[in-house]
Amino acid sequence: MKPTFSLRLRIFNLNCWAIPYLSKHRGDRMKRLGDFLNMESFDLALLEEVWSEQDFQYLRQKLLPTYPAAHYFSSGVIGSGLCVFSKHPIQEFTQHVYTLNGYPYMIHHGDWFCGKAVGLLVLHLSGLVLNVYVTHLHAEYNRQKDIYLTHRVAQAWELAQFIHHTSKKADVVLLCGDLNLHPKDLGCRLLKEWTGLHDAYLETQDFKGSEEGCTMLPENCYVNQRELEPFPFGIRIDYVLYKAVSGFYISCKTLRTTTGRDPHSGTPLSDHEALMATLCVRHIPPQPTPSPTHGLAERSRLVSILKEAWIELDLGVAQARWWTTFAGYVIGLGLLLLALLCALAAGGGVREVAILLWTPSVGLLLGAGAVYIFHMQEAKGLSGARAELQHVLGRAREAQDLGPESQPALLLGQQEGDGTEEQ
Amino acid sequence: MKPTFSLRLRIFNLNCWAIPYLSKHRGDRMKRLGDFLNMESFDLALLEEVWSEQDFQYLRQKLLPTYPAAHYFSSGVIGSGLCVFSKHPIQEFTQHVYTLNGYPYMIHHGDWFCGKAVGLLVLHLSGLVLNVYVTHLHAEYNRQKDIYLTHRVAQAWELAQFIHHTSKKADVVLLCGDLNLHPKDLGCRLLKEWTGLHDAYLETQDFKGSEEGCTMLPENCYVNQRELEPFPFGIRIDYVLYKAVSGFYISCKTLRTTTGRDPHSGTPLSDHEALMATLCVRHIPPQPTPSPTHGLAERSRLVSILKEAWIELDLGVAQARWWTTFAGYVIGLGLLLLALLCALAAGGGVREVAILLWTPSVGLLLGAGAVYIFHMQEAKGLSGARAELQHVLGRAREAQDLGPESQPALLLGQQEGDGTEEQ
Repeated sequence: MKPTFSLRLRIFNLNCWAIPYLSKHRGDRMKRLGDFLNMESFDLALLEEVWSEQDFQYLRQKLLPTYPAAHYFSSGVIGSGLCVFSKHPIQEFTQHVYTLNGYPYMIHHGDWFCGKAVGLLVLHLSGLVLNVYVTHLHAEYNRQKDIYLTHRVAQAWELAQFIHHTSKKADVVLLCGDLNLHPKDLGCRLLKEWTGLHDAYLETQDFKGSEEGCTMLPENCYVNQRELEPFPFGIRIDYVLYKAVSGFYISCKTLRTTTGRDPHSGTPLSDHEALMATLCVRHIPPQPTPSPTHGLAERSRLVSILKEAWIELDLGVAQARWWTTFAGYVIGLGLLLLALLCALAAGGGVREVAILLWTPSVGLLLGAGAVYIFHMQEAKGLSGARAELQHVLGRAREAQDLGPESQPALLLGQQEGDGTEEQ
Repeated sequence: MKPTFSLRLRIFNLNCWAIPYLSKHRGDRMKRLGDFLNMESFDLALLEEVWSEQDFQYLRQKLLPTYPAAHYFSSGVIGSGLCVFSKHPIQEFTQHVYTLNGYPYMIHHGDWFCGKAVGLLVLHLSGLVLNVYVTHLHAEYNRQKDIYLTHRVAQAWELAQFIHHTSKKADVVLLCGDLNLHPKDLGCRLLKEWTGLHDAYLETQDFKGSEEGCTMLPENCYVNQRELEPFPFGIRIDYVLYKAVSGFYISCKTLRTTTGRDPHSGTPLSDHEALMATLCVRHIPPQPTPSPTHGLAERSRLVSILKEAWIELDLGVAQARWWTTFAGYVIGLGLLLLALLCALAAGGGVREVAILLWTPSVGLLLGAGAVYIFHMQEAKGLSGARAELQHVLGRAREAQDLGPESQPALLLGQQEGDGTEEQ
């Protein structure tokens, strides 16, 4: 590769809010989205919440001349909602479905049925290996009493680990999507610290769009205004994050967002705002190894975030175990009740009552069984993530205790390729 | 690294058959396994079917002086059963739970509840990055009418993709575990062709142990003799697979298996046989790029296996869709029945019968709903794997059509680091 090598990448990201039968003006919005993407001709368009594969097929047909490569990530009961359109050939793709994603009995929230996942695309552009990740984490329905907080933190960790382990040979890493995390939320900090990804909104010198880069705005007519009441400017939960590894330099030249209105028809493309970033990658000569004292503050920040995440997951494990114990007691009681009812039915007397009560008892037993199984699975999943966190935390602390000289060697395995970008 | 660099690795693998309350002589076998591992002092001991975390904790305590590092992979309702003991520090670990793993209503088989997964450990040994994978795929209960074949093929593909994407910067890759696949089964061929892993049994010059390297033997008193009737020597379903990437050379110096009996007490350690491999890694000078015609036969073999796997997954998708359609009809009928019963109950006459039938109808509806959700998830999961396979197949065919000159560039992304070992 020439030392003067330079690559410009134009990226589009949007949570499309395309729920069949439920989302307003879905057909019209999909059509306008297709027109816009064709007109702008981005290098990559990454979409979330395209729940219907018919919508994906419609876009695929419409975008075929401009974006010859496309893929829909299939998972869960409804789908992952994730898809991608690319001007360049996709070398490889794969996906990782998050272990935990809400509760099946929260049918009105529906996240459990979606099979939320992270999709990975590998592209080779001018000899450069580009790993592109697209994701959508569990929604936040009530910020004051967020029952999904632990699951979202676990998802952020799984996402960070997936990126960490699959991007070791990538030159450039790009993550786009709806994280359902505010910039200072634990999950967002954890993800950024562990992967070393940079936030396009914070890095760019040329930003135009919504106030504070928000991606859900009160001005947007599709947004539930009541939910945004505590945030007069809106919230920033959709991101373009990136990093380059040693030998490359990446920067965000421009970042644009839509502003809650379509300039032509007046109605927006979605209830979220689109992000449009222009990234520039260039080759830099190998840099000298940073001194041992380099990044001490970063290490200490990482340790504190890991600890915070560990505590959150630990609380989650305890709660999941409480539910399994509770369900276990209900199962025991249900079995006792059934035995009693069988005895009563056999003995005559209140036979009809016993027969009538038999079916609800079986129902109770099956319900408690399902709750037991679900929360046992939750406890195991959270324990798995907690163990990974604990290991990383242990090694980070060990490095701190041993002093700055031993740090690079000790954390090499965890951080090689992560956060090594020379900005 | 010195050109004379050489590393010897002693590996132990065993499916422990340690099911609480069900497996015979579990406590005694765990004790003897611990004694054996301590005595032999392997570099790595990889275990499957350690279903109880108490058993893991027992082994951890017992093995602590010889194997200071240990990890249990937590997943599913019961656990993944996978754990590892290492003489060397573990730099990193993570896990990937398979999307599909049998059916929840096949309670007597129990695989669905196990959260079958692949665990990854990263070790740094003498400056060499070693990625170790341990796994256990869905069991085969009836070879003639194997209802889990599609799930096992999908798992083998997920495993191959996980290894492919997470091992790009590893110098040496090692996979151990119970694949529940015979050497010529589609899943096994797919895994080996796509990852470029070599089979220790086929590669070693020095093998001692069971006939044909079998890991389930009729001589083993814990084995169900009836199941092994068609295989007089037994079956080979547990593996040690490995590869080194460019710059390194790996070979299997010796491979030993147990032979269905413990030399001291007479009873074996498990219903499976243990595998004990001595691997030797050494540094080699960079090799010239292979000529374009190199590996044409391998490519054509890969294409044919990918095609075979695609067909299998496609059949699976069709079957899963049939079940969702069937469940959909049952749901419709159940709703009609409920409406009819409500009308009858309101109208008097056969009121008691209507009330009595109401609960089973609701049960039918809920059952059909669960079947619908499960098989919808199955169809989406299989579609995801099928799409990945189709993409790889398309690119492999493209490479074939374009002739040998274009092959290396086209398949670089898919095969870089895979099958590049210079044996």
